[in-house]
Amino acid sequence: MKAEILTIGDEILIGQITNTNSVWIAQQLNLIGVQVSQMSTVGDDVNAINHALLLAFTRAEIVLITGGLGPTKDDITKKVFADFFGVPLVEDKIVLADVTDYFAKRGRELNPINRAQAMVPEGCRIIKNHNGTAPGMWMQKDGVHFISMPGVPYEMQGMMTEYILPAFKKEFHLPVIYHKTVLTQGIGESAIAEIVNDWEDALVNKNIRLAYLPQPGMVKLRLSTIGRDASELRDNVEKEIDQLIQLLEKYIFGYETYGEDPPSLQKIVSDILREKKKTLSLAESCTGGYLSSLFAAVPGASEILKGSIVPYSNEAKQKLVNVDATVFKEHGAVSSECVKQLASKVREKFGSDYAISISGIAGPTGGTDEKPVGTVWIAVASADKVLPLKFQFGDNRHRNIVSAAHAATNMLRKLILKEV
Amino acid sequence: MKAEILTIGDEILIGQITNTNSVWIAQQLNLIGVQVSQMSTVGDDVNAINHALLLAFTRAEIVLITGGLGPTKDDITKKVFADFFGVPLVEDKIVLADVTDYFAKRGRELNPINRAQAMVPEGCRIIKNHNGTAPGMWMQKDGVHFISMPGVPYEMQGMMTEYILPAFKKEFHLPVIYHKTVLTQGIGESAIAEIVNDWEDALVNKNIRLAYLPQPGMVKLRLSTIGRDASELRDNVEKEIDQLIQLLEKYIFGYETYGEDPPSLQKIVSDILREKKKTLSLAESCTGGYLSSLFAAVPGASEILKGSIVPYSNEAKQKLVNVDATVFKEHGAVSSECVKQLASKVREKFGSDYAISISGIAGPTGGTDEKPVGTVWIAVASADKVLPLKFQFGDNRHRNIVSAAHAATNMLRKLILKEV
Repeated sequence: MKAEILTIGDEILIGQITNTNSVWIAQQLNLIGVQVSQMSTVGDDVNAINHALLLAFTRAEIVLITGGLGPTKDDITKKVFADFFGVPLVEDKIVLADVTDYFAKRGRELNPINRAQAMVPEGCRIIKNHNGTAPGMWMQKDGVHFISMPGVPYEMQGMMTEYILPAFKKEFHLPVIYHKTVLTQGIGESAIAEIVNDWEDALVNKNIRLAYLPQPGMVKLRLSTIGRDASELRDNVEKEIDQLIQLLEKYIFGYETYGEDPPSLQKIVSDILREKKKTLSLAESCTGGYLSSLFAAVPGASEILKGSIVPYSNEAKQKLVNVDATVFKEHGAVSSECVKQLASKVREKFGSDYAISISGIAGPTGGTDEKPVGTVWIAVASADKVLPLKFQFGDNRHRNIVSAAHAATNMLRKLILKEV
Repeated sequence: MKAEILTIGDEILIGQITNTNSVWIAQQLNLIGVQVSQMSTVGDDVNAINHALLLAFTRAEIVLITGGLGPTKDDITKKVFADFFGVPLVEDKIVLADVTDYFAKRGRELNPINRAQAMVPEGCRIIKNHNGTAPGMWMQKDGVHFISMPGVPYEMQGMMTEYILPAFKKEFHLPVIYHKTVLTQGIGESAIAEIVNDWEDALVNKNIRLAYLPQPGMVKLRLSTIGRDASELRDNVEKEIDQLIQLLEKYIFGYETYGEDPPSLQKIVSDILREKKKTLSLAESCTGGYLSSLFAAVPGASEILKGSIVPYSNEAKQKLVNVDATVFKEHGAVSSECVKQLASKVREKFGSDYAISISGIAGPTGGTDEKPVGTVWIAVASADKVLPLKFQFGDNRHRNIVSAAHAATNMLRKLILKEV
């Protein structure tokens, strides 16, 4: 079934709040096999809402509406809703009892503004609101289902989880949807496209869609399919992923399965380290502690992360990490020699199994002809190996820092897995 | 002028990513006096995109489109765009040179897939992409402006900031909007609302709108007004801000003025340090390098930031920062005594003028009855003072880290300005 999500509220149109309701609803519908074909946001305006309802009516079978159900004057959805179905608003006894009860429990009396919450379009199916006072309303027009919910996220989520999603599963004949996302690092979108070209072309006849989702420092590849048999769909996607692994093996660092929290690259590497009972330390210059903070962001980091040094100045590199003074004169701080010493010496200092070091020119200033902005040297070290590698990123300070952090993490991943 | 924002991408419809582009664009348009009347999201589907363009054409004067411009096969926007205007796609020499240059700089050759990025609808106004390869395209149809941009947030933001917003201001007759945002730290949204209640009520008759914009670790208060006379608008807002300063003086740490990059708290403190020719070092435990990375993110950080140590384990606190072993037995790592020693000793180690130290329980585990998750000790040190302070944040690991970093920075700000 095709669904549309309609969000009503001026606060979204002026950019005051991000529309998180739509993404949440989309995720939930996707999991039960309802396809979202459009999302729209309009303001608290009679014509705009009416127009949006009409258009959705011509396109979709389910229209989920959030927003515009509060007790205050700028909320006009309910009136437009009733007019759209050509019915009057009537006071619903059960809703009135619920609203009265809601206020009684909080030691407050029902005022006329709140009593108006019990007015609903005649003949609509009421959805109880266990987290607030405005009820949800489910109407039908020529087989199209319109469901109106409050815009407050937890009120809407309560209605969806308790009533609407179970009702969809019970009352509609829904297909199964399966997604899996492959996470890659160290290769661009177009380079991937070239490598997987034939494989991608063949997907068309296999009812599987591929999407490229580039992010700073990584590219995600999402495979999705729709059908009736959950295990068959999963097998089909997994079969394609097996082939993809052969094409992109050295770039793949993990997977996201739909409905689970997406893992960060640092979480994936932390899990490998935890499993092998190994520890990590870092010496970060141009990234200034950013990579350490990503490792520290993973719950349980204290088992893995011994600590870090951010020797931002050359003086600190010398005094705190004991880099030889000659390195700066002969090679400079952004050099293979410098990151090699930083990695092996910080590893010794913290007594960790592995270490990462990063030194580069993040920008916007500090570049030279020989070492332009974006030049970053990274080294990873274990007890018996130190591997330096040079990267040339772009000219945006923030993205250089993010890209260097992810590239360094992937280098460590490969070292641990003995892929280098 | 009325604008619509059209987002294209299956990844949004399935709820894989939140549509942050729309809210960002809405904010920017609002700031220059362009009203957003609708936001829509459709999938990577020829009919859906074409239908959305047609509808927007009937309703708006400006249509800003994001998504669907990458080099890979799931992107079909450009083709639909050309068809909508009834023109062919042609290779643009300047875009081709830009794309070639982009790859050359990264030591890579142009493959046919990337070369296709230079294909644009005939006669369109090209918008340069300084952060990627897909150009922006500006077309007109019967006076309605259609502007298509890539979906990657920083590429889209670059085009908007560098080209599109300045062009709108220059080419359209827009009302004048004046905004100024007051940045506060150390007080919650509802506590502010109580303090400023009377002042806020009086704004209604002064054509000034107030918005509360809470963020982890700070609350921003945006005052905005719209009219024709820029200096009158500015004077009106500044007059109100003078009053607001009297009410909230000790919580205000800075301001954002429209058209300037919003300063981070770390940027504000870095500017004060630079002006006074003073330097900083840090010892971060539970924040794991996050605060260092915020200071390092400020361009020119090397003048200010001597460096940091992230002594994540007690062993590292002892060995690398020389915290007395007795501290852990008698007080624990999350204690006034520990952060005092961390701050004063890291300051000595790096030879900096000031130092910050942070030690706490970020969660989700590691809490005790005495020191629950969210307990964080912070100290700031100068040559003659060490000030420790205890904070009790919540139970979300990420928010605890962010809040601790901002609280620590504000403590340093007060120490430098001799407010404590």
